[in-house]
Amino acid sequence: MSNANLLLAANTIWVVVAAILRMFMQAGFASLEAGLTTMKNAAHTAGKHVLTFGVCSPVYWEVGFGSAFGDGNTLLGTHGVAPSVDSLLAVGKAPYSFFTTVPGAAGYFFEVVFAGVSLAIVWGAMAERAKLWVYFVFGAAFTLIYSVTSHWVWGGGWLFGLGMQDFAGSTVVHYQGALAALAGALLLGPRIGKFDGRRGNPIPGHNIPYAVLGTLILWFGWFGFNPGSTLGVVTGDRVGFFAYVALTTNLAAAAGALSGAVTAWLVLRKPDISMMLNGVLAALVAVTAASGFVAPWAAVVIGLVSGVIAVVGVLAVERIGIDDPIGAVAVHGVSGVWGTVATGLFAVPALAATLKTGRGGFVYTGSLHQVWVQLLGLAAVGAFTFSASFGCLWTMKRLWGIRVEEETETAGLDVSEHGMWGYPEFYIPVPGGYGTESHGHLVAPTHPEARPAPSVEEPEAEAA
Amino acid sequence: MSNANLLLAANTIWVVVAAILRMFMQAGFASLEAGLTTMKNAAHTAGKHVLTFGVCSPVYWEVGFGSAFGDGNTLLGTHGVAPSVDSLLAVGKAPYSFFTTVPGAAGYFFEVVFAGVSLAIVWGAMAERAKLWVYFVFGAAFTLIYSVTSHWVWGGGWLFGLGMQDFAGSTVVHYQGALAALAGALLLGPRIGKFDGRRGNPIPGHNIPYAVLGTLILWFGWFGFNPGSTLGVVTGDRVGFFAYVALTTNLAAAAGALSGAVTAWLVLRKPDISMMLNGVLAALVAVTAASGFVAPWAAVVIGLVSGVIAVVGVLAVERIGIDDPIGAVAVHGVSGVWGTVATGLFAVPALAATLKTGRGGFVYTGSLHQVWVQLLGLAAVGAFTFSASFGCLWTMKRLWGIRVEEETETAGLDVSEHGMWGYPEFYIPVPGGYGTESHGHLVAPTHPEARPAPSVEEPEAEAA
Amino acid sequence: MSNANLLLAANTIWVVVAAILRMFMQAGFASLEAGLTTMKNAAHTAGKHVLTFGVCSPVYWEVGFGSAFGDGNTLLGTHGVAPSVDSLLAVGKAPYSFFTTVPGAAGYFFEVVFAGVSLAIVWGAMAERAKLWVYFVFGAAFTLIYSVTSHWVWGGGWLFGLGMQDFAGSTVVHYQGALAALAGALLLGPRIGKFDGRRGNPIPGHNIPYAVLGTLILWFGWFGFNPGSTLGVVTGDRVGFFAYVALTTNLAAAAGALSGAVTAWLVLRKPDISMMLNGVLAALVAVTAASGFVAPWAAVVIGLVSGVIAVVGVLAVERIGIDDPIGAVAVHGVSGVWGTVATGLFAVPALAATLKTGRGGFVYTGSLHQVWVQLLGLAAVGAFTFSASFGCLWTMKRLWGIRVEEETETAGLDVSEHGMWGYPEFYIPVPGGYGTESHGHLVAPTHPEARPAPSVEEPEAEAA
Repeated sequence: MSNANLLLAANTIWVVVAAILRMFMQAGFASLEAGLTTMKNAAHTAGKHVLTFGVCSPVYWEVGFGSAFGDGNTLLGTHGVAPSVDSLLAVGKAPYSFFTTVPGAAGYFFEVVFAGVSLAIVWGAMAERAKLWVYFVFGAAFTLIYSVTSHWVWGGGWLFGLGMQDFAGSTVVHYQGALAALAGALLLGPRIGKFDGRRGNPIPGHNIPYAVLGTLILWFGWFGFNPGSTLGVVTGDRVGFFAYVALTTNLAAAAGALSGAVTAWLVLRKPDISMMLNGVLAALVAVTAASGFVAPWAAVVIGLVSGVIAVVGVLAVERIGIDDPIGAVAVHGVSGVWGTVATGLFAVPALAATLKTGRGGFVYTGSLHQVWVQLLGLAAVGAFTFSASFGCLWTMKRLWGIRVEEETETAGLDVSEHGMWGYPEFYIPVPGGYGTESHGHLVAPTHPEARPAPSVEEPEAEAA
Repeated sequence: MSNANLLLAANTIWVVVAAILRMFMQAGFASLEAGLTTMKNAAHTAGKHVLTFGVCSPVYWEVGFGSAFGDGNTLLGTHGVAPSVDSLLAVGKAPYSFFTTVPGAAGYFFEVVFAGVSLAIVWGAMAERAKLWVYFVFGAAFTLIYSVTSHWVWGGGWLFGLGMQDFAGSTVVHYQGALAALAGALLLGPRIGKFDGRRGNPIPGHNIPYAVLGTLILWFGWFGFNPGSTLGVVTGDRVGFFAYVALTTNLAAAAGALSGAVTAWLVLRKPDISMMLNGVLAALVAVTAASGFVAPWAAVVIGLVSGVIAVVGVLAVERIGIDDPIGAVAVHGVSGVWGTVATGLFAVPALAATLKTGRGGFVYTGSLHQVWVQLLGLAAVGAFTFSASFGCLWTMKRLWGIRVEEETETAGLDVSEHGMWGYPEFYIPVPGGYGTESHGHLVAPTHPEARPAPSVEEPEAEAA
Repeated sequence: MSNANLLLAANTIWVVVAAILRMFMQAGFASLEAGLTTMKNAAHTAGKHVLTFGVCSPVYWEVGFGSAFGDGNTLLGTHGVAPSVDSLLAVGKAPYSFFTTVPGAAGYFFEVVFAGVSLAIVWGAMAERAKLWVYFVFGAAFTLIYSVTSHWVWGGGWLFGLGMQDFAGSTVVHYQGALAALAGALLLGPRIGKFDGRRGNPIPGHNIPYAVLGTLILWFGWFGFNPGSTLGVVTGDRVGFFAYVALTTNLAAAAGALSGAVTAWLVLRKPDISMMLNGVLAALVAVTAASGFVAPWAAVVIGLVSGVIAVVGVLAVERIGIDDPIGAVAVHGVSGVWGTVATGLFAVPALAATLKTGRGGFVYTGSLHQVWVQLLGLAAVGAFTFSASFGCLWTMKRLWGIRVEEETETAGLDVSEHGMWGYPEFYIPVPGGYGTESHGHLVAPTHPEARPAPSVEEPEAEAA
């Protein structure tokens, strides 16, 4: 076989494996989100990730992929809708001239799992109170919104032309998902019982080991996310550059774990496990833009800052009265902004040259040029995605309503929307428990004769 | 290094990675099956997948691999039993002339995880009532049965010669596993309390988040299952064709999720989560035969139909009085038949030529030739596997009995067979709970003073 | 692209994929360990694996990697501390001349996940009673201890020079982790209530399905662990030799499952699921040293013996009064010794030649030379690691104490150390339950009016 074909084979192996790893992030989001929300919604919360990836995949195949990566202009891909078998088997040809290193089919598969991750993020802030049909309709709509901006930054669009550095999507995937999540949280309003006056009540996740597993699945999948974004085995003149990306990704995540744990220890007096998990994820989000551009020390700095962002950001979002059950706005939004800006600060000139994208960052060049490009990208993507998402959800809310009835929410979406329990045998229908007449939300199933559980000091009170 | 060796290296990477992903499907089956059955059997149900993969691997190494892929005649491989180190390191030589793209060891590893998946399917319909030794003995027997038919279709056997199209095993792996599962379910009879007269009582799965995770692990592993079945990086004249297979696989699974959810919504009035999961799995089963042969639109059609099959099939199997706790007969059997036939309908002539297997399907050629070949394959594999499995289990039943005692089943296999609880601290020994004197099956542990849980309408009643 | 670069690309793909799989073993340890310990510590036990991998990664990047694999002398790597971007992108150059097949970054990534696994093992025997800061400080210290001995055996050190055969780390990773675990268990002492006089009370794991999932994740990750240790696609003159390593690894694990289950059946009268899981893990530990050196039959023998070791070893460790909650000393320590010695017994001369490490084993050569080398390695690594770990933990104990207060331990680390519950809604604060005044450890939450649970015969009593 020719060397060109061997290179094509190696590229395709790497890109497909990376895409497979990234697809598995759906399992991470399902476990994380189900673990960090309440028991009465556990089946629903986990299951909706299967549902929405089911929505995303055909929509992205039919329209999204062509819009994002089909040949077109700087605003939108205008070819490659509903791709033919031949176009999926070809390499570097119209309508997918963008993919020069792998067949079109590998391109689709690699990109659809990005779209699926961005969509998974959206639901985090909307958990435990949205109507089921919203997942179908807004799932499809967001997939299209996502396709537009991913064309701008990655698919040869105008931000790509300006040299915006977003290696694997701190802006495109995470910040964007978080903006739609924010729009949803604002339009849905907080869960019943979340706010008592202006003070946020903690609604603890019902299964922390599940959330830990979800976080580790996401960390694992991120090694497809970031290193896979080389789109092949050769990057500029570097063979196997993706290994370097794996290194920076791992260092940032580790730093985020430490920083999240220590920040929670300082701010909340206890190293809350879910805050540490948020630290890991925020660090992974931030290093996503940076992973191919920065030195290892900078990856550590990015991760350390992200761990602080995760804890403080989650508390700040709550403080301003937004109910974001799994912290998507802070972890994916604020940290996505941080990662995008940090890339402009810390990009190593030689690596920017290797990646042929933008320039060296402020600490090396003394120039803020790259930072401005990054900020412009954030502003443009932010304006488009937030307004499009808000408009879409606002219309849906006005026409048919996007939030479930109060009694549905109180009883839990599992039983009300799906006619089943997440854990039918663990569920103990004692008086005061979920689904009974005297049920009060936020109260774990309690036996009336039971003594109260030892009080756990509430973190929020001490964060002041 | 020579180009031939570089190609060999690339092939081996891909095949081994695919095999590793497929091996992980054992974790998917363990989580899915434990999640969809009852709490009193949770440790047993999860753990038996470790046990039976432990049975399968040495049996397949000692005998199965040679029977399936060793050199031989069109009925059976007759060489390559208990392979030597040299034969495992060689490429494309006797006794494993079949494997021309990778070393014999990669062939074994790739094929044993197929055998393990087929075996995992068997237990689904036999869950919660079989004796422990059955897993040892029938696990070994089925591994050998499986080896025979996989030789017919894949290992150069007579169905291979006829041009049967079963890309990655809708027939060989799934339908076959489901047939043994059916034999087991028939010989075991339904679980205590499943049928009340002719009406099936729902026995809800005890941990739906677990089942969701299991489904996503299976979806993930399926990207080794189907795309790995190219057995290398070049397919005909297509480099990286496996990426195309990943695309069709993903589209079908997504379509199955949507179709399963919507069908459950229509048929059961509620979009039952476990039915949606069944839809995903049924679609993956069906596209397994088709994934290398069909266009993306056909993969979507296959998935949509499978989602309907999953819901209607599970209900139909119950209606005829068969107790199949996780729906293996419908999901792997009926959908396996559908996928095999659909390949004969939808195979793109150019892809059949690329794969050098059979002809184009009915919708392209107007000829039913390929459909007849597929049906012949289904009939032959079905007759052999069902009769061999039934005969084997029937003999076991007559000689020593294959079903546990009533009190063992009532108390649960965890405590009776393994002397432990799956969740010793969640288990709440209240009156009426599992394992107590007044225990009634199908009743979640209840406190006597508790008010009844809000009634969940029973899907079966409405499906009429 | 040149053939040399194509080979480099293929090597890097394989090594990075293997490292990613191995990183995922953290999720396996988190699930396994949380599943096999008690509910009151579930969040802590799972979460600490995130924390300690967070500690390990930057420490290994800053110091460990240079000490282990940097250029240096036979005792220690003396270059390559805090590596530069250039040194991470270079291949086979100072300060990482050791890595001739992949870029330095791939080397770091591949090795740091080894260090993380060894560290994960440490905590198993220390579970449920260590103070939180111990994980930070001893996590860092052990990462450095590990780096020294891994230099000896793998990084060109003196045991490497003697021809010690430890393909993927039965000694370096597992035995070493177990020695630190033993030091920790000795210095911490047993959990409250574990020993009643001299007799060990069972403290059953709270979530066996979780432990099953963890075991299957580890089995999956082990296909990165062992086959990845070829460090590339060509081994001696064998292309794709890693597939052979996958085969031996899988056979041993399967044999360990069977042997563990049967041994538990014989010794405990019931095939305890957690013992079967220990059998799998012990077999994987033992075959780690052997996987590239031995024939398939020897892998089966190694696995069968390991399954016995797992059951008998766990009981023996308990019998001598050591409280090792998840059996790390037996499973990783005793079985690590067995695997290291077994390699000296069973190494195929031709494979030792292919791997250019040591000689054929006793059964082929009749010479005990290789066995003595293996024993010398075990003695040297054992003396260094145990004394260094014990000294470090002893100092920590004397200066600040390493064990939590009695009431902290009784209430559980989740609520005491992290201010949260692992399962806040499953937790049922009935009298006698965890965290209440009359709480007795080792008692599952019980309602006072409940009848006692059916008695499960205690395995320990029968093992006598």
